[in-house]
Amino acid sequence: MLSKTHTKYIQSLQHKKFRDETGLFFAEGPKLVGDLLNGAACICKEVFALEKWLLANPGMPARHPDTRFEMVEEFELEKISALSTPNQVLGIFEKFWSEKEPLLTGKISLVLDTIQDPGNLGTIIRIADWFGIKHIICSENSADLYNPKLVQSTMGSLGRVNMIYTELTGWLTRNKHIPIYAAALNGKPVQHFAGTKECMLIIGNESKGIQPELLALAGEIITIPKIGEAESLNAAVATGIMLSHFTN
Amino acid sequence: MLSKTHTKYIQSLQHKKFRDETGLFFAEGPKLVGDLLNGAACICKEVFALEKWLLANPGMPARHPDTRFEMVEEFELEKISALSTPNQVLGIFEKFWSEKEPLLTGKISLVLDTIQDPGNLGTIIRIADWFGIKHIICSENSADLYNPKLVQSTMGSLGRVNMIYTELTGWLTRNKHIPIYAAALNGKPVQHFAGTKECMLIIGNESKGIQPELLALAGEIITIPKIGEAESLNAAVATGIMLSHFTN
Repeated sequence: MLSKTHTKYIQSLQHKKFRDETGLFFAEGPKLVGDLLNGAACICKEVFALEKWLLANPGMPARHPDTRFEMVEEFELEKISALSTPNQVLGIFEKFWSEKEPLLTGKISLVLDTIQDPGNLGTIIRIADWFGIKHIICSENSADLYNPKLVQSTMGSLGRVNMIYTELTGWLTRNKHIPIYAAALNGKPVQHFAGTKECMLIIGNESKGIQPELLALAGEIITIPKIGEAESLNAAVATGIMLSHFTN
Repeated sequence: MLSKTHTKYIQSLQHKKFRDETGLFFAEGPKLVGDLLNGAACICKEVFALEKWLLANPGMPARHPDTRFEMVEEFELEKISALSTPNQVLGIFEKFWSEKEPLLTGKISLVLDTIQDPGNLGTIIRIADWFGIKHIICSENSADLYNPKLVQSTMGSLGRVNMIYTELTGWLTRNKHIPIYAAALNGKPVQHFAGTKECMLIIGNESKGIQPELLALAGEIITIPKIGEAESLNAAVATGIMLSHFTN
């Protein structure tokens, strides 16, 4: 039986303030919780699961002696879940360790300017993981990495991509030995960049684009040629298209 | 002042059943309502707007003599809106006319197998509109084109792409003079298909992929090469990547 205090404490992790204070976040569903439990990078503190999940995963408690497993009823899971349809299990994890000043030489990295929609940022992390991108540098006003919606939308890629939140102008200036590319309108077609091995690619906020001071630092502006009439592409879709041409 | 009956009738359009019965749907926000009002393909029956919107768009009623414009208060807009933050204006439109048996020769068309998430389908329509795709053929169990979430996520591309809901096996068989390609794992790399001018590209449900009987009809299986570790790509992202290589 989940106590009222415990329920409130888990609910509080839906808010960034409490995630920052505790250094914890939560993830839900058999697939995602399983991936994070089995991932090397992640320390799991507690798992709250329906009997069904515990029966389907009998070896879990023995393989994770430092994790507390608690069986809960459906109505209890509903209380602590952030999903409209709670899905068997919720795990509380320690935030990932992040490499603050990684070596970007010889790599393609992403620089995200104000991606505020958690679902969009989660999808970008999943795309980065598909294309083998190791580092994403986000502006400080980007969606929080541990927002429940973001965690769910990464589909298990969370923790496989190093995420850095920082002031971008300073970051780009410090790392300007790496070519800086920006995804924007009226640049060179993305097809010209097939075989790119090293760059920092700036992706902008969907409605506002890339801030002028960041755009000014870019050595190349890259454009996805438009044939039809849509006004823009979703930031995650644009990221996927750019990376697929770079790694061509 | 919006009557109770009128409020209920607008609210009922959140349900497919009532949209099908009335042949109507609604869209929200100055940008989207403006785009649809100004688009040639769309007949607008009614507009419910805050005074602010009416003042900012003084010429609208004169340009649309067949549309009824009504000023509403914020609390009334909240009642009829499907958005968590209502945005100035809601318009009620007649569903688009759809071309049921278009000529697909010399064109790239999309065939969507069970894309059930309205946001995903809306994003795919927007991508199709960017790349100049004229026709999307959806399985009958796909998200409804006039679902409020879908309408919002098309960002104005709704009505610029012809949407057909039909049984896909029959469709593909009838149109098999057009090359059938399928986006799936373990196929030829998408880069080999640069310059594709004519095909029907099948995109599958994210969790289940493409149904075996549809996959069997495909002349080519096309794959987005994976470098990292993510298990899959979002269906809309995969669509964007494929189309950007075809139109290379």
